[in-house]
Amino acid sequence: MRLNVPFLPRKAAHRDPLGEAQRLSLGLLESCGETQGTLTATRLAAALASLDDETAQAYDLWLVDQLGPDAAMLGASIERWLERPDAAHAAQLTRSAEPRRQELLRRVNTAPCGTRHLVDWRARLLRQLAQCPALAPLEADLRHLLASWFNRGFLTLRPITWDSPARLLERLIAHEAVHNIAGWSDLRGRLEGDRRCYGFFHPALPDTPLIFVEVALTDHVSEAIAPLLDHPSSRTAPDRPSTAIFYSISNCEPGLRGLQFGNFLIKQIVADLKAEFPTLTTFATLSPIPGLVRWLDAGGRSLSREGDDPRRLCALYLTGSAPDGTPGRPRDPVAAFHLGNGAELWRINPHADVSPKGIAQSEGMMVNYVYREQDLVANHERFAQHGHVARSREVAALIDGPAASPWRWTLPWGHAHRLSHPQEKQPCQ
Amino acid sequence: MRLNVPFLPRKAAHRDPLGEAQRLSLGLLESCGETQGTLTATRLAAALASLDDETAQAYDLWLVDQLGPDAAMLGASIERWLERPDAAHAAQLTRSAEPRRQELLRRVNTAPCGTRHLVDWRARLLRQLAQCPALAPLEADLRHLLASWFNRGFLTLRPITWDSPARLLERLIAHEAVHNIAGWSDLRGRLEGDRRCYGFFHPALPDTPLIFVEVALTDHVSEAIAPLLDHPSSRTAPDRPSTAIFYSISNCEPGLRGLQFGNFLIKQIVADLKAEFPTLTTFATLSPIPGLVRWLDAGGRSLSREGDDPRRLCALYLTGSAPDGTPGRPRDPVAAFHLGNGAELWRINPHADVSPKGIAQSEGMMVNYVYREQDLVANHERFAQHGHVARSREVAALIDGPAASPWRWTLPWGHAHRLSHPQEKQPCQ
Amino acid sequence: MRLNVPFLPRKAAHRDPLGEAQRLSLGLLESCGETQGTLTATRLAAALASLDDETAQAYDLWLVDQLGPDAAMLGASIERWLERPDAAHAAQLTRSAEPRRQELLRRVNTAPCGTRHLVDWRARLLRQLAQCPALAPLEADLRHLLASWFNRGFLTLRPITWDSPARLLERLIAHEAVHNIAGWSDLRGRLEGDRRCYGFFHPALPDTPLIFVEVALTDHVSEAIAPLLDHPSSRTAPDRPSTAIFYSISNCEPGLRGLQFGNFLIKQIVADLKAEFPTLTTFATLSPIPGLVRWLDAGGRSLSREGDDPRRLCALYLTGSAPDGTPGRPRDPVAAFHLGNGAELWRINPHADVSPKGIAQSEGMMVNYVYREQDLVANHERFAQHGHVARSREVAALIDGPAASPWRWTLPWGHAHRLSHPQEKQPCQ
Amino acid sequence: MRLNVPFLPRKAAHRDPLGEAQRLSLGLLESCGETQGTLTATRLAAALASLDDETAQAYDLWLVDQLGPDAAMLGASIERWLERPDAAHAAQLTRSAEPRRQELLRRVNTAPCGTRHLVDWRARLLRQLAQCPALAPLEADLRHLLASWFNRGFLTLRPITWDSPARLLERLIAHEAVHNIAGWSDLRGRLEGDRRCYGFFHPALPDTPLIFVEVALTDHVSEAIAPLLDHPSSRTAPDRPSTAIFYSISNCEPGLRGLQFGNFLIKQIVADLKAEFPTLTTFATLSPIPGLVRWLDAGGRSLSREGDDPRRLCALYLTGSAPDGTPGRPRDPVAAFHLGNGAELWRINPHADVSPKGIAQSEGMMVNYVYREQDLVANHERFAQHGHVARSREVAALIDGPAASPWRWTLPWGHAHRLSHPQEKQPCQ
Repeated sequence: MRLNVPFLPRKAAHRDPLGEAQRLSLGLLESCGETQGTLTATRLAAALASLDDETAQAYDLWLVDQLGPDAAMLGASIERWLERPDAAHAAQLTRSAEPRRQELLRRVNTAPCGTRHLVDWRARLLRQLAQCPALAPLEADLRHLLASWFNRGFLTLRPITWDSPARLLERLIAHEAVHNIAGWSDLRGRLEGDRRCYGFFHPALPDTPLIFVEVALTDHVSEAIAPLLDHPSSRTAPDRPSTAIFYSISNCEPGLRGLQFGNFLIKQIVADLKAEFPTLTTFATLSPIPGLVRWLDAGGRSLSREGDDPRRLCALYLTGSAPDGTPGRPRDPVAAFHLGNGAELWRINPHADVSPKGIAQSEGMMVNYVYREQDLVANHERFAQHGHVARSREVAALIDGPAASPWRWTLPWGHAHRLSHPQEKQPCQ
Repeated sequence: MRLNVPFLPRKAAHRDPLGEAQRLSLGLLESCGETQGTLTATRLAAALASLDDETAQAYDLWLVDQLGPDAAMLGASIERWLERPDAAHAAQLTRSAEPRRQELLRRVNTAPCGTRHLVDWRARLLRQLAQCPALAPLEADLRHLLASWFNRGFLTLRPITWDSPARLLERLIAHEAVHNIAGWSDLRGRLEGDRRCYGFFHPALPDTPLIFVEVALTDHVSEAIAPLLDHPSSRTAPDRPSTAIFYSISNCEPGLRGLQFGNFLIKQIVADLKAEFPTLTTFATLSPIPGLVRWLDAGGRSLSREGDDPRRLCALYLTGSAPDGTPGRPRDPVAAFHLGNGAELWRINPHADVSPKGIAQSEGMMVNYVYREQDLVANHERFAQHGHVARSREVAALIDGPAASPWRWTLPWGHAHRLSHPQEKQPCQ
Repeated sequence: MRLNVPFLPRKAAHRDPLGEAQRLSLGLLESCGETQGTLTATRLAAALASLDDETAQAYDLWLVDQLGPDAAMLGASIERWLERPDAAHAAQLTRSAEPRRQELLRRVNTAPCGTRHLVDWRARLLRQLAQCPALAPLEADLRHLLASWFNRGFLTLRPITWDSPARLLERLIAHEAVHNIAGWSDLRGRLEGDRRCYGFFHPALPDTPLIFVEVALTDHVSEAIAPLLDHPSSRTAPDRPSTAIFYSISNCEPGLRGLQFGNFLIKQIVADLKAEFPTLTTFATLSPIPGLVRWLDAGGRSLSREGDDPRRLCALYLTGSAPDGTPGRPRDPVAAFHLGNGAELWRINPHADVSPKGIAQSEGMMVNYVYREQDLVANHERFAQHGHVARSREVAALIDGPAASPWRWTLPWGHAHRLSHPQEKQPCQ
Repeated sequence: MRLNVPFLPRKAAHRDPLGEAQRLSLGLLESCGETQGTLTATRLAAALASLDDETAQAYDLWLVDQLGPDAAMLGASIERWLERPDAAHAAQLTRSAEPRRQELLRRVNTAPCGTRHLVDWRARLLRQLAQCPALAPLEADLRHLLASWFNRGFLTLRPITWDSPARLLERLIAHEAVHNIAGWSDLRGRLEGDRRCYGFFHPALPDTPLIFVEVALTDHVSEAIAPLLDHPSSRTAPDRPSTAIFYSISNCEPGLRGLQFGNFLIKQIVADLKAEFPTLTTFATLSPIPGLVRWLDAGGRSLSREGDDPRRLCALYLTGSAPDGTPGRPRDPVAAFHLGNGAELWRINPHADVSPKGIAQSEGMMVNYVYREQDLVANHERFAQHGHVARSREVAALIDGPAASPWRWTLPWGHAHRLSHPQEKQPCQ
């Protein structure tokens, strides 16, 4: 299957692959005129791609140890700055404090598919970081570089449809992190008719959305996920939809974790949808509560305790409130994402996702966050500065007046056998 | 003519535009969740665009003075680094040493047309730098950022043809720096038939090539420019061209000066042309010698001194050699560019450009540099490391054996009235 | 300049070019399996392109004489049809009655640029038809074929902007038939800011609009052309335009004359503009009256006769009414076009186009036709069936009550020197 | 699922749908100015689409009976032609002999998706023709029209890859007629690595190839289909392929049956492949023999008769020869297609397709046809004019010298249970 692979100089496996990678790295850094640079970058990228995991980590640690800032230059700059801390000396210090590996990473990017290589590199680092904290400075360099390159100004929002390239759609099937896509036919059902899908794209990774959002057009705020995932043939699309439900948000690139694209994304999609469907008035999510069960377990709490409305417990969790309603900071990553965007915690839906995964993570509960354009900025600021969670009257009543709620929780499924759910895919945060 | 302008919040001219810009800048830096960020960035970009030159400079100096690194954090990081200069402390120092305005600039990029704004900003800074050296740290920040964003890995080479958008072609007419384009008909003649044009493009500036190259397909290495600029109707295109002449290279973006794109460019074009015209065997330039007359004047030299081959003087200049042939470093910017790419100094052509500009800058002389794929790397390295200039036998003979050259220089134009030539446009270097 | 030309087998000029063309034509018709067909078609197209005008006409006449229907087959089909005129025999007769040159023309279309060749062929025929009426059957065949191929279902409406390819924009400059475009800068002024341009395109001629329309966005129904043609810098674009003025409609392809695209065009543009500018409420033309002076001269009439409102005379002409107002059929081609589309004759504007051409053809008068979506069908039907011209009250009053109009015509330019205006370009009809 | 459907005026189901369709048809034909035409066409297309099969047939028969040529006009034209059969009268007769439904069909094409409607219409007619021969004249009209519109000059050859739109790829899965595509993963294996796929496209049906060809790059002329259909992971792609095998050709549009695209297609693909892979020297098919078993059964022949080389029987069938080798005309549709293109019958491969379908139609035999550019025209002509089948020495020896072949046929599968294979999909012919 070699025919499609871009040409790389073929080499017999090097006897000393680590040494070869180090040699190429130093060569690449020294190539002053860049005539030869791209060729060396291409060779280095190929050499790195062929390293086994252990050698790759050794190489990474070498970068951390040996290609930091030039100690002599840095020392001199510090001295001058301490003498006279003016703007010129600060600029000099800035320059000297940049580790040399930063420039190396920038030059690796000139290889064909260099950006792809760097993104995957960081994905590997993130996986190894727990075992090997010494890699942190390299991960920080990559994060800094990628955050700069994947600046919002370089991203474009594009609809993803059944007319998109198969290579791109394949990524959706692979990376849908919230509600699994069962295959091409299921995928098609999420792109056509009363469904829409949007993604953020970067020019250097044209085949893959960085993040994508699935939307259902409905006539009410959905309180359960199953009807949204039904086969298209059993759905009835509203003629004049009033409501757009964002029912799934997933990242495709583990190597870009922590670079926040999602907040821009939803605001732009709202604008696009309004233009296409002027009848839309409500924009809401139907979101999972991935940390609920973990939190319950950790605190020895149970949703099914007699006399309590289980929605209250859930609301306390989502708002980060104490049992008596004292405000705190929400820890649920999905809640933090939407509340940070300025959305409002609108309704808690029991029995909303009775799939094994839904039961396992939240006893089947889901939540609606509502996006109201006019409130986003104020909500966001109160949340960012004071941790205040915007909430609907219904949710506020749940939290404030437990006694008022006669509602009683019964598990609708004999034994709630919780599944552990390995997190290979990346839910948006 | 407002209809095409992207929407910006309209404001009455602010009473205190500098204060407003500063206020927005601080707000933009503080917007921790970025929900509000793009809006503030858009407002700031608009505020900056409306500043008069004087206020803009005041704002720039404020950035230099006030938005450098956080002094307290930097101090602490330095202290820790001096105590224990390990990788982790280095990473911390790197972070602390970054001036806060860097992040500000990155956030300005999220505004619509943000990249355009930043590129133009640097262009202005470069103009003001001579009068106001205190702006240097800001210019360095912008240069650093733009060099990272305009990384070769993000650029694409594209042919520019008569089928390209008029908006793009307009830029060629405006920015052709070597041989003026007289209008749309002249332009068309440079894109069709036996002519080709290529440019490097960045996704954030799709309407403009960063740099473009004009090529003529011929059957010999051209020794004068006039036949290449003739009207197409008077040209005879070779059926099976043997030679590609790069007769003009220009930058379109003064704000990207010093970011070297050109070296990659020519190598890629050679590959493209070979694929399209398998008969091509020779790739050469017909290049101006912009600094020759200045150098002659500075040294009290004259091309028309009796007994000398004026080509020898020119060869000495281009190779940076002393009058006795002792090697040195070439100062001519165009020579430095091509020799740095690994090209060979091939032939010096008197009477090659007898336009007023050609006379003014080089007494009408031009030079061919030849690109030979197999020699590029070695030539480049010898030039980069030892300043050695690759030269043809003919040129070597000129330099080494002045006595051998009986050729005699006569000015073909009674009085060589030199024109001063203001450099508004940007010749490639 | 051969390099861009698609490859055609080179031949020395044929000694008997007519015979060669005839030989190739018969060969093309006989190529039963089409393996060889495209090659022969390419050769024939090249052979035809190299014929001089006289030989081309000889070839055309040969087609008319020799490649009509097969007489024997036709005779037999007629016989059978006369015996029993049923559907099957009719179908047979249809087949037999098709001239063999129809199939030849279809096969010529398989050559590269075959469609272009056929369109230009008809353009030549239309020029020669007056001198050589015997060509009419061939012209009819081409018209029939092109009308079928340029079916509205295959055309796409596209905006033409400053981002369109220069090759396409060049066609606008060349073919603007109503108000001459003075060059690229003038052209740009007609595409940007408060101006729009739209064209109909066919996939086989992607570089050229078949017809294009220029639109100005204003805040009133324009009564003179000069302000619309002014340099953009001297124009004030309305913030929220209320009115779209169609001020120029031109065809680009003389070979498609008589195939009516224009009527679809305006209706679609109205829809596009409404979507882009919701404030638009009025859609009107500012149209020339190309036949007015000719009609005046033919009837010995004069606009400047004392006591008459010259607008009345013009209204009589445009509605085809008799001097006493008795209705008739309008003969002005532009009037016939817009009234046939269902537009309303809205206002007659004296001194509206004081260019030499405007004076020459209509004493400077122009007219507004208004397109009201809700009236188009009814207007069209009354016009098509009864010749009734929809008119505004103002125009109706002009026609009905001449005495009521005290307005007096004075030529604003001493001597109205009328220019003859050769009609090389093709005003829309 | 209405949201994606282009807007059509909604109507309650008409009480008299046939009458309504007839009324709209007449209205469409009469709409002299076409302002109203597109609207009527859209309504008619919607009305026709909603007819049940029986009513649709009644409508079709009405078209045949009532919208033939205008009898009076036709009579008059015939009379004049019989009087004086000159070119002008012939032209008049041509015009009069065109059935009025032709113009109706052309106007239906102006509706949105009009071309799609007409293509599907003909597909239905072809299905109904056997039961209802009276529809033949309408089918002939549609065929004539579509053959003109799908002229080779309007088609473009495009590669189909994993980057093509899913909507398009879906068509391949649905219409692959030779070797079933098992799903998206199987499809991907046919598009990447050492595989290529090409299709012919028409601008009015952009989502579907009219015909597509699957190609494998190999290092020998394949003698069996299974290795070509294997999973990619088990294939070894040659580094420098010498041979391109066309192993599947299918049509996507039953409504275009009989319009020959395939012959152009292969020649163009050969050119494209040569440009991409200069090492290719051999272009061959691995083709089914769909009619072999039918022919054997009809003649009471059997491949497994003792003493005979079964390949000889197959060769006799494919060349249309008599048992003693006397030349005849091949009846196999696939053979007729490739031989008509000028290919050579190269090798007969027993046990080449042991799938149930392969056994059922040809006892597992397949055949290679070789395309040699330099022989195509001559082969084609000898085949077209004299029915002569170009053949390799091996095949010639098989036919000429049966005694020379000691090879013995044994069925490799106990009982050759033949499956009937319903022909819903359309193998290329």
